[in-house]
Amino acid sequence: MQILEIREKSIPIHSSIRNAVVDFSNMNISAVAVITDIIKEGKRVIGFGFNSNGRYSQSDLINNRLTPRIMELKPDEYINKKGNNFDPVKLKAAMLKNEKPGGHGERAIAVAAIEIAIWDAVAKIAETPLWKLLGGQGAQSKVFVYAAGGYYDAEKGIKGLRDEVNKYLDNGYTWVKIKIGGMSLDQDLKRIDAALELLGSGDKLAVDANGRFDRRRAFQYADALESYGLRWFEEPGDPLDFSLNAEVVARYRNAIATGENLFSLQDATNLLRHAGLRSNVDYVQFDPSLAYGVTENIEIIKMMSSNGWSVEQFFPHGGNLLSLALTGAFKLGGCESYPGVFQPFGGFSDSNLIENGFVNLPEEPGIGFEGKADLHNLLSTLVRD
Amino acid sequence: MQILEIREKSIPIHSSIRNAVVDFSNMNISAVAVITDIIKEGKRVIGFGFNSNGRYSQSDLINNRLTPRIMELKPDEYINKKGNNFDPVKLKAAMLKNEKPGGHGERAIAVAAIEIAIWDAVAKIAETPLWKLLGGQGAQSKVFVYAAGGYYDAEKGIKGLRDEVNKYLDNGYTWVKIKIGGMSLDQDLKRIDAALELLGSGDKLAVDANGRFDRRRAFQYADALESYGLRWFEEPGDPLDFSLNAEVVARYRNAIATGENLFSLQDATNLLRHAGLRSNVDYVQFDPSLAYGVTENIEIIKMMSSNGWSVEQFFPHGGNLLSLALTGAFKLGGCESYPGVFQPFGGFSDSNLIENGFVNLPEEPGIGFEGKADLHNLLSTLVRD
Repeated sequence: MQILEIREKSIPIHSSIRNAVVDFSNMNISAVAVITDIIKEGKRVIGFGFNSNGRYSQSDLINNRLTPRIMELKPDEYINKKGNNFDPVKLKAAMLKNEKPGGHGERAIAVAAIEIAIWDAVAKIAETPLWKLLGGQGAQSKVFVYAAGGYYDAEKGIKGLRDEVNKYLDNGYTWVKIKIGGMSLDQDLKRIDAALELLGSGDKLAVDANGRFDRRRAFQYADALESYGLRWFEEPGDPLDFSLNAEVVARYRNAIATGENLFSLQDATNLLRHAGLRSNVDYVQFDPSLAYGVTENIEIIKMMSSNGWSVEQFFPHGGNLLSLALTGAFKLGGCESYPGVFQPFGGFSDSNLIENGFVNLPEEPGIGFEGKADLHNLLSTLVRD
Repeated sequence: MQILEIREKSIPIHSSIRNAVVDFSNMNISAVAVITDIIKEGKRVIGFGFNSNGRYSQSDLINNRLTPRIMELKPDEYINKKGNNFDPVKLKAAMLKNEKPGGHGERAIAVAAIEIAIWDAVAKIAETPLWKLLGGQGAQSKVFVYAAGGYYDAEKGIKGLRDEVNKYLDNGYTWVKIKIGGMSLDQDLKRIDAALELLGSGDKLAVDANGRFDRRRAFQYADALESYGLRWFEEPGDPLDFSLNAEVVARYRNAIATGENLFSLQDATNLLRHAGLRSNVDYVQFDPSLAYGVTENIEIIKMMSSNGWSVEQFFPHGGNLLSLALTGAFKLGGCESYPGVFQPFGGFSDSNLIENGFVNLPEEPGIGFEGKADLHNLLSTLVRD
């Protein structure tokens, strides 16, 4: 058994939204197909993967730096011990051969796109959903999800925000996250008041500053937000400014959440060591699609546990089927969802609706892309000759 | 005045060397030309830049993510206040528009390649060498350089290492750096003994583990190296493992050096905050070509100073004319050199020989690429139509 080819294609994100920092309208996502020589029920096994939003133009890295290192291996260098499947750990190690240590950025996203496609193939070869393959008997078949939205949109205003939150509630979500920091504090507090009026209590609303604030403004928001008792205050300052984070934590009684912009096990370890986070209060949000993929995410979960953190404090960023699978496999606290945006990459299976804040995991072998028609149609274009 | 075009070209590194981690033979470097509408002495002003070794395949990032953000600006958005030159700070900010915070990796290298070319153009427009433009009266016209080599080469052995060190001494260098960690400790100590015999004293020899060691091996080497009184022990462990670095520092009396694999002001700040480094003993080696370029490097120097560090403890990585210019401009402790390797990107002006460990800075306007014939010939291929 062997990998015959790895194909990459850059696909535009059709998303006319912005958060406090980023306008996504000109970006693309690299989708990857790992084409194997294995036939299951008359069909060739093909693993699919893609990376996260915001770090685009990965083609050169994927096609000219990482893929050749896999294609020059002999199959027996990446087959598992039993000889019945590929070994994703060996394949990831091969991609990182000749890489310098440190500086975890775009490389981590490019590796992830390929590594995720490898895991999709591996689970398909094992004829099981990835969440079951990884989690075994301990996996949860249903996971908590929350609706992340509340992006700024000049035209939509407070009324539009209300409509959005109502739509999430109608669609079965129970918690909502909205953006802050793109307007003045006063305007942001009005947005928060409007959302809370519909959600009922502070623990059902999280707010996200997307790493925008300097020290003064982080403190200003922390002080103003405290009495709301929000679920969490996300990325107050630069995601790598561990000292600033520790200062906000020391000042703010409720939960802080961060971690989506840390792209490696080492950076995640540094966060837990240096950023003052409280394992019984705060949340972490590492994104497998931004941080070398599934294998590294599993290492991060082990590192958290060995530092006394419960996996219930881990809510992976990403809003896609891969983050959902890992949440199910390892009983993480819950999974982010971006209803209706970053399509067709974002979101879960077509057949699994959100009910009372929970969603069922897909039963298809692999990550479950075949159960989301628009996404599967798009990914299939990679393998039509 | 305006930037007419930004061109990028990937050029193979012809280098058959390896350190403890990396084989460079399949890599390339992105060279960039910033083509302006300005004519000086009958010739069009063109700024050149390139990035550092090891993080290759940057074309997609440079051409499709960063360059378009500059080319869509109006010239008055990037002209300085006096109206007589471009403003590199504004141009760098434009490249980072719509970028998510955190995760500093390949993006930092791609931005650097363009930003360095912009600074080269700016100094040419000002008709002055970059080191004078940045350093003014305070700049040093002559800087200390050391020879970084001692790469592993199975065929060359200890005799080859001796020949190499002797060649550096013959060519005017007084300090030498060699690799460690690619062989057993015993074999590495034999290499160190051989080099020291020629150099005379421990402070003329540095050793570099390239971030290879785990905790056990870092301690083993630290203990074994201490009595040699070496200039420095470089990158014992993962460059982002600040706690491990602090443990090595606590155990090792002599200097530790690190920083080349930290790609941003924030990462550099974290190093000084969390890695236990002693401002009066240890060295830092941030590389402008790996960390967003000249503007960010200046911010790093300011951050160091505000944390009580002398610039004499800063020896930038890179081994090229840009690192040399910054060393001269800001009176940094010295500049790394890789005699004969990473050609033609590595090395300094053809006319400036090393004498007693020092080299004169170039007098050509800009970074000085025009004074290194093989490099200039190569860069010129970017602008031949």
